[in-house]
Amino acid sequence: MQAAEQAIALAIAASDAHEFPVGAVVHRDGMIIGAGMNQKETLKDPSAHAELLAIRAASEAIGDWRLTGATLVSTLEPCPMCLGAILQARIEHVVYLAKDIRWGACGSVMDFSQHHALNHRCTLEYRPNPTVVDLMKQFFKQEGKR
Amino acid sequence: MQAAEQAIALAIAASDAHEFPVGAVVHRDGMIIGAGMNQKETLKDPSAHAELLAIRAASEAIGDWRLTGATLVSTLEPCPMCLGAILQARIEHVVYLAKDIRWGACGSVMDFSQHHALNHRCTLEYRPNPTVVDLMKQFFKQEGKR
Repeated sequence: MQAAEQAIALAIAASDAHEFPVGAVVHRDGMIIGAGMNQKETLKDPSAHAELLAIRAASEAIGDWRLTGATLVSTLEPCPMCLGAILQARIEHVVYLAKDIRWGACGSVMDFSQHHALNHRCTLEYRPNPTVVDLMKQFFKQEGKR
Repeated sequence: MQAAEQAIALAIAASDAHEFPVGAVVHRDGMIIGAGMNQKETLKDPSAHAELLAIRAASEAIGDWRLTGATLVSTLEPCPMCLGAILQARIEHVVYLAKDIRWGACGSVMDFSQHHALNHRCTLEYRPNPTVVDLMKQFFKQEGKR
């Protein structure tokens, strides 16, 4: 399964658990080293976004907080917290499948992925995916607002 | 013990554990509901900053990801990840005791605490404390760079 497909599968799993549907994976050298789905309500943890959980899982898997050279794929544009974690983890590249016009920190609301003053930067890639948008629309219809 | 004193005690504990000395507490209604110290190296977790751990501890303690009305006190100016988590957690007020000219997201490098587009904002208060600065200087002398 490709990284984007796995992230979408995780977003579906989040939705099944009545969480806002977001999934994320971290891969490096052709291998997925971390995965996460949004679990904010389930864990009652404001930091339990898919991306942050995927980063923590990847760091735990490789035994290093530095994920240098890794790519994070998220179904939704990372928020400031998650982009901050991406930079802290020294992740190289971010792929996201839908924009977040309310919290997106990869261009929608702000963008500090290439901030000149920080000692790490990452590249961004937007790969629009209609399945992801449908999932979120369905969630809002069924569960109300995040 | 006041919140700032407890945050400093946690920064000292971090230093004793050979971590960059940062401590943070979350308080509300006169009670400390969460505390954390930087444990990035120990936990091999890029998200294990004092502030993020204090927020997670507070949410766990009260059983809610929303920390509405709470104040976070950190010995160091929060980074973008931690300020993002502060906003995600709906924290109202942030006090920090030293500036971070490399990663500070409360004015030193960037500041999105009052971003017009986000659905939550927080107020900031800088209370310079020489003990905190001494602790960090001592760390750089003894342990090299973070």
